[in-house]
Amino acid sequence: MTLQTHRLKNGFRIVTENMPGLKSASIGIWIKAGGRHESIEQNGVAHFLEHMAFKGTKRRSSLQIAEAIEDVGGYINAYTSREMTAYYARVLSDDVDLALDVVSDIVLNPVFSSAEIEVERGVILSEIGQALDTPDDIIFDWLQEVSYPDQPLGRSILGPAERVSNFQKQDLSKFVSENYGPDQMILAAAGGVDHESIVRQCEEIFGNLVSRNQNQLLPGNFSGGEVRHIKELEQAHFALAFEGPNYKNLDIYTAQVFATAFGGGMSSRLFQEVREKRGLCYSIFASAGAYSDTGTLTLYAGTSGDKVSELANITMDEIKRAADNMNENEVARASVQMKAGLLMGLESPSSRAERLARMVAIWDRVPTLDEVVERIDGVTVNSVRNFAASLIGGSPAALALYGPVKDAPSVEELQARLVA
Amino acid sequence: MTLQTHRLKNGFRIVTENMPGLKSASIGIWIKAGGRHESIEQNGVAHFLEHMAFKGTKRRSSLQIAEAIEDVGGYINAYTSREMTAYYARVLSDDVDLALDVVSDIVLNPVFSSAEIEVERGVILSEIGQALDTPDDIIFDWLQEVSYPDQPLGRSILGPAERVSNFQKQDLSKFVSENYGPDQMILAAAGGVDHESIVRQCEEIFGNLVSRNQNQLLPGNFSGGEVRHIKELEQAHFALAFEGPNYKNLDIYTAQVFATAFGGGMSSRLFQEVREKRGLCYSIFASAGAYSDTGTLTLYAGTSGDKVSELANITMDEIKRAADNMNENEVARASVQMKAGLLMGLESPSSRAERLARMVAIWDRVPTLDEVVERIDGVTVNSVRNFAASLIGGSPAALALYGPVKDAPSVEELQARLVA
Repeated sequence: MTLQTHRLKNGFRIVTENMPGLKSASIGIWIKAGGRHESIEQNGVAHFLEHMAFKGTKRRSSLQIAEAIEDVGGYINAYTSREMTAYYARVLSDDVDLALDVVSDIVLNPVFSSAEIEVERGVILSEIGQALDTPDDIIFDWLQEVSYPDQPLGRSILGPAERVSNFQKQDLSKFVSENYGPDQMILAAAGGVDHESIVRQCEEIFGNLVSRNQNQLLPGNFSGGEVRHIKELEQAHFALAFEGPNYKNLDIYTAQVFATAFGGGMSSRLFQEVREKRGLCYSIFASAGAYSDTGTLTLYAGTSGDKVSELANITMDEIKRAADNMNENEVARASVQMKAGLLMGLESPSSRAERLARMVAIWDRVPTLDEVVERIDGVTVNSVRNFAASLIGGSPAALALYGPVKDAPSVEELQARLVA
Repeated sequence: MTLQTHRLKNGFRIVTENMPGLKSASIGIWIKAGGRHESIEQNGVAHFLEHMAFKGTKRRSSLQIAEAIEDVGGYINAYTSREMTAYYARVLSDDVDLALDVVSDIVLNPVFSSAEIEVERGVILSEIGQALDTPDDIIFDWLQEVSYPDQPLGRSILGPAERVSNFQKQDLSKFVSENYGPDQMILAAAGGVDHESIVRQCEEIFGNLVSRNQNQLLPGNFSGGEVRHIKELEQAHFALAFEGPNYKNLDIYTAQVFATAFGGGMSSRLFQEVREKRGLCYSIFASAGAYSDTGTLTLYAGTSGDKVSELANITMDEIKRAADNMNENEVARASVQMKAGLLMGLESPSSRAERLARMVAIWDRVPTLDEVVERIDGVTVNSVRNFAASLIGGSPAALALYGPVKDAPSVEELQARLVA
């Protein structure tokens, strides 16, 4: 593997990794602009913009964008997260130049025709409807809202239907001018790629962009609380979050080891206790997510209405037990799972390109595998127990409940059980 | 790449492919036993059995199974489809022997303790609840039921809650004795794997299994019809199926090229007409699936209740238009998409192992890439138009509707529109 990086004069960054033997490549542009960069009036505009990128540029119609990539058998896609928007393509190695041309065209030259905005509005309203129809999707939007209330970080990425119904060209252009500067952009590519050729192409395409000051992010203040939507569903959906480390805090590795040992696989405590021993659910997991200035430890399970109290209470008891007696074996296993998972993920050009972009966005460089392994190996049993203990002592929690959840405990009851 | 195959005396087949440079591997056992092999009384037992494999063997408890694989950072999983059950693990290359030991243990030696059966019943009922809560999941079960009514092929894989509530050890054992013979089993492995070592291990583990006659499958008779579940949902979910070729019929390539050009990507006709031009939906696609003796061309879209009629009618009009004027460019693009997709998929050990098993199950050998490319290249514009035309002339259709679908057209109305 050959990792190479380059920075243009205007701050635009390039990171590539050639993977010998691969006949395909993943290439994309990651922009440090997402839901969090929106004011309340703009909520949903970053995602709307991501859609509009595919609806026509100065050089290509929407059909021509699709055809350009699909004519060579590739695919092109995009996503918006809370801190990033990504546009990427997967193609055979011979078509990397073409893919870069198309991806950069949709990022830099979208035309935002009003007719196309009206059409795409319907598509996005439909996407919002689909999310609302999927309980184990929408519950995480509600959990986020309760975790970070009245803040950009707490708002949904799709935005509320009312705002989406009103966005116009000037709203999109304003968000672009505020957030799509060259120093917010990272070009990442992995697989059968040639660094020099990509750099040359980027110089030409992005070299003349003028840097701008991006708006400062409002800090994320995890405050917690509860949202409970009672509905006739088959399953009672239970999601709980605590504040965790941000991604620049090295404790994030402790949080991840904890999440893995606690609810990350079949041997984890939650899976064993709640599913394997008691048969209370099909899906259950813990995960540690992170943003630039905050993070969340999230727990989720789906169960029946008459079992949601039992499940919630056991989950609390398991947190206490973890703080008390999470052991060497469990921590060692979780570390190995994280390290092997990292290695396996890197065998795919798509996840490798994704990681390159994320690392450059966070650290302005790509940590070596050895460095990451060292961080993971540095996590001790004590630090993991302490992390579990930190969830207990009056630490705020956010609870989202959906379905037949009338009788589920409140967030205060769950917190009381933690300290009991 | 080095593809190698081997057959034990009892019919057990082994297929491996070493992928130079990879540090991980995927290894699993695919068994020609799925939902279709169940009698009506057994409906859900193949899937229940798949769950019970993880609940303890003669040598390992459920926790020990999970720990064995996760201690080395791997993961283990399984799925049940209508014609197959698969148990597989992804591990680093050094741990392939261990993974084979664990996967074969759970397939051959599950103990089906009654206590564990009771616990797992709760898990599966929860899984059924989750499927019912996910409209764009459950609608495909209903579509299958309408496509193949009163037949094993039409029944859901999870089975109805009433039957799942009653399965006992003898039901599981009976299904195993009927369907888990060595000539129904294929061991497939890809990535950093060593063929000779896997064969030696398989001789020892599987060599003494005694062949048995598997029950003959009841033929799949696509008959069509309609199911409409009216419910207050955000989206109206629309799924339509026609009969297509089975997987031994070389016309399957024509069906796949058609599905790709018609609704397989962003440049496809359905995507362009329904989403890009009219903004009627977020998700829309066509796909061609196949079984041993029948197949289905499936269309799906989610839209709002007031637009489902428009969407359904346009979809019919597009089928007619495709029969009339699907062109060289579209067919060429769809072929390239299929070929590139195949190549990219083969860069992942998991999808490669999956393909090896599927090819051996169908053809008793693994066709070379060149062979497949030749088949795809053999698809002509005329054959694609003819395939579209075959959906029109009174060919049966199956329609599933879910959500605010009171005013959606009936299957007869859609078929009438096709011939109008």
